[in-house]
Amino acid sequence: MTLAMTREDLMAFLKEAFPQVSDDYIVDHVEEKLIRVRLVVDDRHLRPGGTISGPSMFSLADVTVYLGVLSMIGPKALAVTTNCSIDFMRKPAAGQDLVAEARLLKLGRVLAVGDVVMWSDTGPEAARAGRLAPVARATLTYSIPPER
Amino acid sequence: MTLAMTREDLMAFLKEAFPQVSDDYIVDHVEEKLIRVRLVVDDRHLRPGGTISGPSMFSLADVTVYLGVLSMIGPKALAVTTNCSIDFMRKPAAGQDLVAEARLLKLGRVLAVGDVVMWSDTGPEAARAGRLAPVARATLTYSIPPER
Amino acid sequence: MTLAMTREDLMAFLKEAFPQVSDDYIVDHVEEKLIRVRLVVDDRHLRPGGTISGPSMFSLADVTVYLGVLSMIGPKALAVTTNCSIDFMRKPAAGQDLVAEARLLKLGRVLAVGDVVMWSDTGPEAARAGRLAPVARATLTYSIPPER
Amino acid sequence: MTLAMTREDLMAFLKEAFPQVSDDYIVDHVEEKLIRVRLVVDDRHLRPGGTISGPSMFSLADVTVYLGVLSMIGPKALAVTTNCSIDFMRKPAAGQDLVAEARLLKLGRVLAVGDVVMWSDTGPEAARAGRLAPVARATLTYSIPPER
Repeated sequence: MTLAMTREDLMAFLKEAFPQVSDDYIVDHVEEKLIRVRLVVDDRHLRPGGTISGPSMFSLADVTVYLGVLSMIGPKALAVTTNCSIDFMRKPAAGQDLVAEARLLKLGRVLAVGDVVMWSDTGPEAARAGRLAPVARATLTYSIPPER
Repeated sequence: MTLAMTREDLMAFLKEAFPQVSDDYIVDHVEEKLIRVRLVVDDRHLRPGGTISGPSMFSLADVTVYLGVLSMIGPKALAVTTNCSIDFMRKPAAGQDLVAEARLLKLGRVLAVGDVVMWSDTGPEAARAGRLAPVARATLTYSIPPER
Repeated sequence: MTLAMTREDLMAFLKEAFPQVSDDYIVDHVEEKLIRVRLVVDDRHLRPGGTISGPSMFSLADVTVYLGVLSMIGPKALAVTTNCSIDFMRKPAAGQDLVAEARLLKLGRVLAVGDVVMWSDTGPEAARAGRLAPVARATLTYSIPPER
Repeated sequence: MTLAMTREDLMAFLKEAFPQVSDDYIVDHVEEKLIRVRLVVDDRHLRPGGTISGPSMFSLADVTVYLGVLSMIGPKALAVTTNCSIDFMRKPAAGQDLVAEARLLKLGRVLAVGDVVMWSDTGPEAARAGRLAPVARATLTYSIPPER
């Protein structure tokens, strides 16, 4: 199966469709049913004390699965999130980007489901450890509108 | 049972602890185990097309249950969200504030659980209808750190 | 709006479609978008120690929202659960039925969403207190197959 | 890190603590923070039509994460499920066992979180395809009671 959108396509789509947030995210990698997106952490994502805020993590999870779905079905901006369950498990490392990896578990005619794990990007060595100690996880369901 | 924090206490706490977002929220009402908080909708909460963004709704749900918990136990800024499940059910009405009503279902020694329903604030008449047609619902769990 | 199925219709449907579990449940009440179903607690629902098992509570939540959906749209046995989030908050009272009350928050063309609160049935007096101290809560999403 | 309980320990614990369901489950594999448990499918797990019931899948997810937690911390029968979110994504294959693989994402002092993916056990070849087409997924949170 070939991807409907490449990493570059996804970045261009994000810039066009969501200009106000597109600078926050970098698509690090995409392959069939798997995608990694990075939140370029900035002051506006932080809570007092320097922790990345819950809404910033929710947004990263949402964007990551959304782009993962689009990578498979093409640029349908109308896919909408219908459900999210998210677990916040550890404090992210201060001053580090947050990296989300999503797997598409279902890509049906009307519903898509993706699982996301997020961890602090603390360099190649620590990243492996970081995978064992994820900051948060989430599952998102998207409703895919019928073609017209 | 008396409230540990009044509506005014909660607004002052929000201003002090979360100055960057405190203008977004107004505590409309608080009583034992029940609280209503309003998101004063602004351009930065909107997606292209004028819909309130998912992260803005997540934030409102999170703030509402958080303030509900604090209204019962006092200003413990360290309570942290550990889990959220959220369902997005309808498009919010354009140009209307979003109102969240949370009920605390559990207020234990280490965990608190609250249910939230959100609807567009389309005036007293429509509000009743609005309750029957909520925009979103969420359940949040908070971990309450032990006293030191 | 009139109900598509009455309390008696729902009980008869349950007996016909799910004979192996229909004796476990009694529909106590149904009205527009609201339904109450009782789990008639029996040894097979219990964990060692006498607590009602998690799967028994999950089943009650699932049946309750399912029957609530059918009460509105008629006997479509093919509606399937796509998502459930459930919070277990307190031990149920020993030797008491468990009562679930579900509200339908969304009844769309393809998806239905219902919220459930469960509490031990400890008599009319305690029931009011019981509502303030629910045993569990859940939200379920059903996918409604298109008419053929 | 060594396991607190081996595969054999877990099977013996299940037999002792939950005699009424222990024949339903086989621990196929356990290693640090990863466990696979099989539901030996029997008529009582089926819905009319031969599909494995939702409660049976919920139970499998619950048992799998529970045993995964015990494999790390030892036989504390008092760990209780506080939250579960579960997505039902595909019909299980008829007449096949259901296999659940759980990863422990967090194992804290008071809370443990595990992710589960379930698929029909349709033989070594199909299993690989089966992983790409999971039947269900779930995340469970356990509350670990303090030592006394």
